[in-house]
Amino acid sequence: MPSVRFQPADVVAEVPAGTLIHEAALRAGILDLELPCGGEGSCGLCQVQVEGRDTSALACQTKIVSDIVVHLPDRSRTGARVLGDSHSLIDPSLLPDRERLTPLYRHRRLTVPPASIEEHYSDWTRLTRELGRNGGPAPITSELTVLRQLAQAVRAADGDITAAVEESATGLHVREVQPGHVPGHALGLAIDIGTTTVAVQLVDLDDGSLLATQTSYNMQIRRGADVISRIDYARTPERLQELRTLVLETINGLIAQMATATPIEPCDIHAAFVAGNTTMIHLLLGLPPRYIRESPYVPTVNSVPELRAQDVGLNIDPQAIIACAPGVGSYVGGDITSGLLCTDLSTNQADVFLFMDIGTNGEIVIGNADWMVACACSAGPAFEGAGIKCGMRAAEGAIERVSIGDDGEQLDFSVIGGGKPAGICGSGLISLLGELFRHGVVDRSGRFFNSPGTGRIVQHESRRAFRLATGQQNRTGKDLVITEADLENLIRTKAAIYAACSLVLENVGLTWEAVARVYIAGGFGRYMRIADAVFIGMLPDLPLERFRYIGNSSLTGAYIALLSREHRRRLAEIASRITYVDMSSNPQYMDSYVKALFLPHTDLEQFPTVAETFENRRRKAS
Amino acid sequence: MPSVRFQPADVVAEVPAGTLIHEAALRAGILDLELPCGGEGSCGLCQVQVEGRDTSALACQTKIVSDIVVHLPDRSRTGARVLGDSHSLIDPSLLPDRERLTPLYRHRRLTVPPASIEEHYSDWTRLTRELGRNGGPAPITSELTVLRQLAQAVRAADGDITAAVEESATGLHVREVQPGHVPGHALGLAIDIGTTTVAVQLVDLDDGSLLATQTSYNMQIRRGADVISRIDYARTPERLQELRTLVLETINGLIAQMATATPIEPCDIHAAFVAGNTTMIHLLLGLPPRYIRESPYVPTVNSVPELRAQDVGLNIDPQAIIACAPGVGSYVGGDITSGLLCTDLSTNQADVFLFMDIGTNGEIVIGNADWMVACACSAGPAFEGAGIKCGMRAAEGAIERVSIGDDGEQLDFSVIGGGKPAGICGSGLISLLGELFRHGVVDRSGRFFNSPGTGRIVQHESRRAFRLATGQQNRTGKDLVITEADLENLIRTKAAIYAACSLVLENVGLTWEAVARVYIAGGFGRYMRIADAVFIGMLPDLPLERFRYIGNSSLTGAYIALLSREHRRRLAEIASRITYVDMSSNPQYMDSYVKALFLPHTDLEQFPTVAETFENRRRKAS
Repeated sequence: MPSVRFQPADVVAEVPAGTLIHEAALRAGILDLELPCGGEGSCGLCQVQVEGRDTSALACQTKIVSDIVVHLPDRSRTGARVLGDSHSLIDPSLLPDRERLTPLYRHRRLTVPPASIEEHYSDWTRLTRELGRNGGPAPITSELTVLRQLAQAVRAADGDITAAVEESATGLHVREVQPGHVPGHALGLAIDIGTTTVAVQLVDLDDGSLLATQTSYNMQIRRGADVISRIDYARTPERLQELRTLVLETINGLIAQMATATPIEPCDIHAAFVAGNTTMIHLLLGLPPRYIRESPYVPTVNSVPELRAQDVGLNIDPQAIIACAPGVGSYVGGDITSGLLCTDLSTNQADVFLFMDIGTNGEIVIGNADWMVACACSAGPAFEGAGIKCGMRAAEGAIERVSIGDDGEQLDFSVIGGGKPAGICGSGLISLLGELFRHGVVDRSGRFFNSPGTGRIVQHESRRAFRLATGQQNRTGKDLVITEADLENLIRTKAAIYAACSLVLENVGLTWEAVARVYIAGGFGRYMRIADAVFIGMLPDLPLERFRYIGNSSLTGAYIALLSREHRRRLAEIASRITYVDMSSNPQYMDSYVKALFLPHTDLEQFPTVAETFENRRRKAS
Repeated sequence: MPSVRFQPADVVAEVPAGTLIHEAALRAGILDLELPCGGEGSCGLCQVQVEGRDTSALACQTKIVSDIVVHLPDRSRTGARVLGDSHSLIDPSLLPDRERLTPLYRHRRLTVPPASIEEHYSDWTRLTRELGRNGGPAPITSELTVLRQLAQAVRAADGDITAAVEESATGLHVREVQPGHVPGHALGLAIDIGTTTVAVQLVDLDDGSLLATQTSYNMQIRRGADVISRIDYARTPERLQELRTLVLETINGLIAQMATATPIEPCDIHAAFVAGNTTMIHLLLGLPPRYIRESPYVPTVNSVPELRAQDVGLNIDPQAIIACAPGVGSYVGGDITSGLLCTDLSTNQADVFLFMDIGTNGEIVIGNADWMVACACSAGPAFEGAGIKCGMRAAEGAIERVSIGDDGEQLDFSVIGGGKPAGICGSGLISLLGELFRHGVVDRSGRFFNSPGTGRIVQHESRRAFRLATGQQNRTGKDLVITEADLENLIRTKAAIYAACSLVLENVGLTWEAVARVYIAGGFGRYMRIADAVFIGMLPDLPLERFRYIGNSSLTGAYIALLSREHRRRLAEIASRITYVDMSSNPQYMDSYVKALFLPHTDLEQFPTVAETFENRRRKAS
């Protein structure tokens, strides 16, 4: 069997002749060689260098026939950046009341009164009466093991007991009863499964405190960058199982990291609340996602019944209760309903809000406390670095913000983590596009003007490009450029988002002016300068104070739902109240989209402050 | 180690010196050496003959110190008699409607409509909408394995599916979904666990038909004849486990027998409805029964949450749903609520009924559709043959009815199964006592008159006795007698039942005359001549047409509840509506009991027809 040595990791695998390089990498334990297009050979992002060959090879297409040495791409371009929790970004009044938590699982200290001749209720009846005080949900169920402990437990310490109780949508479930006070933590997880990023929070269910946050890339990325390519990849049971295993490895890896970093045991984690888009939830649970993308686009399930950790495959207490945020449809999932818990839709009855969760897929919800309409648009992975020549995700080495001098030549940028840049991430791209447009380097269609005599306009692979850094100023040693093709890509992405927002507003008979609040959610948004996004026409031209950035609201929502019965109830209500509008089948969508393929938009009246900037510049120039 | 050989089975066990004979018998696989007193050495019913010794030995007390041969008692005295089902004894209108069964588990053939762009409900939502039609209970839950099959299943045959659905008190639960019509039976069990007898019925859940009935003695009998001795026996976790194993062996043995006799596989049995008294249910589930008999007499649980077969220990589909009839208290269990399903309490709103379930323990319920009061009395095991010199249960060889000629000498009896008698069972004892009293052989206190010159009055172990058969007329080769001590025992038993009934009537301010219907339930009652029971003062002196014998109503009730949602709901309602009255702590009870310690009663006015018989005889004699 040929052997293959991977560098710089310096690991070797022996594989049968004909094995693909990416499969050999998996066998060698290299888990981060990603296949954004799902191994179709179309995206070119799995390029590796094979020693002794002149050109690079695609790991997803190249078969190993003899002993070789393979050089993998620079890890820093795909490395994860651990983001802090974004709970602090939302209105504190939206978080559950710490004094009256009703988590999915908790240890409740109770006194079960003794029976008497007059009140000869069974042990179970006396226990359930105490559990049901203060309007707890019914019915109350239990297990044989608990019943076997019960007689002894309620008598050992004069009725003083600690009951481990799950509170699910279908009632209370008693997991354990022990006499007296039982020391030890009741721990839970809030889990957000994004197409790109997975975030897990370890929560003390007794007081709601956040013990740890860990995030990492979803290991499924190597099988496709977006939900569509993952659905396509999962077309056989074996591949579905592979994707399921990859996301489980991701989550279980994060749990293991938290267990190492904190004095906890994973078996003390008794509950998890999971938010994710419909495809991510299907892949986690091993449900075939195929029908999500086949007309009429229905998933197996939107409101997943509560499950057990051992069935799902999470490495925590095998009997831990696993709840999933309810979805609305194939393209508006539990990540959105969960995220909506982070808005004040419940307190401001009349005001109309617009909620945008911008990731590889963009989801938009408009409404108020009485009605809600949602749609999804395929924003594409451009803002996460894919399909962009020098793009990368918001990680170490990424340019996250750009400023261009009035001469169109002078240029400043900030790099995540400092030092030389390795690429440019979504917020950097928005910032760059805004600056290029603001300083007249590109026209309204995103093409470079012929006129400006900046030396940064270069030819790159037969198209014009703007050079941010030369090879010497760069970690990769190659020019860091943004090409006209990249700009077209970005404009398509921002147009998709704006068109979807505009159309959904039009559908409900409203204008942008009627929107009192715009919530922007997503890991993406963390580094996004709203003024830039308005300037390029991705966000509407509204007073900046109407925008509110709420970070990873899907994760924060999962944290809230983990801790509060009221919020779990509200989640179900939100999911049932949202009307899903399918944009892809709307004939107006293409029209709206085409109109948005300009900077900021075909119709300048929609962007008065941008128009004013132009007017000022024209006056100044003339 | 000494060896012990058991005869007539001719099996040998080697045991450590000091092992009790009954323990050695267990090791040798001999399971029917019973210890009615729980191994306390007080009942004397485990007598065995040790070869070479003159006197018999108690198996529960005698240690093995050297090699011995042990002769076990005649098996026919403890052999089981298979009783037919007694569903035919109850009013057919009380049975569930065969055309509209709603069993605990069933295969439902449904058409799940396809989704459309306009109605893009998930597969699960479309399925649950169909399941919920016609007012099915909510919520509807499921398992991951089902969700994984779902997308394929609802598409494979144009939405035509077979869903395996459990319908429990807490909603519907989908166990399996398959496309098209799934051949094969959905089978269920109705189980009645009596202190003495266990009965199991195999039921086709599709049409309610009864496929098989099997009964046997509860193997726990060897650890005590009544619930109190079993509770006492179960005082250590090991002994509790032993009793649990014994009843499971009993039930699983019956299931295995049914599987042999019919073309079914136990794994096709997906549901079981269990009725039993509170102690029997505790022992089945391994719940410590101790507090049932310690003041204030509360069980661990009356309404057992639904369980799975694998947790309970039944050898059927491991995931089969196991429901138990709800109990009322420590001494009024699910066998009684189940039995009440066999009465017309729901149709005759105003009429007062009295329900008596006579077994080793007697339970009494009085009421109508609006109110119900229950009490229990310790009838004792006399009617099941224990504590009676030549007593035995209603099995092969038992005298079940006796007629005495006017001369007090001539005697006829009928033997179950024909041939020579081996003993006398409860109905035979009632019949005999009635005849002895009717013909002036015994006085009103149950003592033999000195006067009558019948040769059947003999001395037996220093007390007087009535000889039914000589050793030659008998399978045992010894005289078959009833002693004055036996008669005292029987009178105590009938007095306990009558006193409890009278007192509970008095408690609710009624007289016997107000009782429109007396239901008599129990395997015991199958052979009981009601006129005899009235004559000795066990049953009230009411017109005979007011009595209705309903057989093993606990089993029939379990069969009904297995098949009908409405009856399961009614069971819960019955249990919640019954007020339990503790007789043992009622100071009037002893007074009422003492008054009933005469034949038929101290107060003859309560038995006018019996009094009239006496009057007629006196007139005739004078």
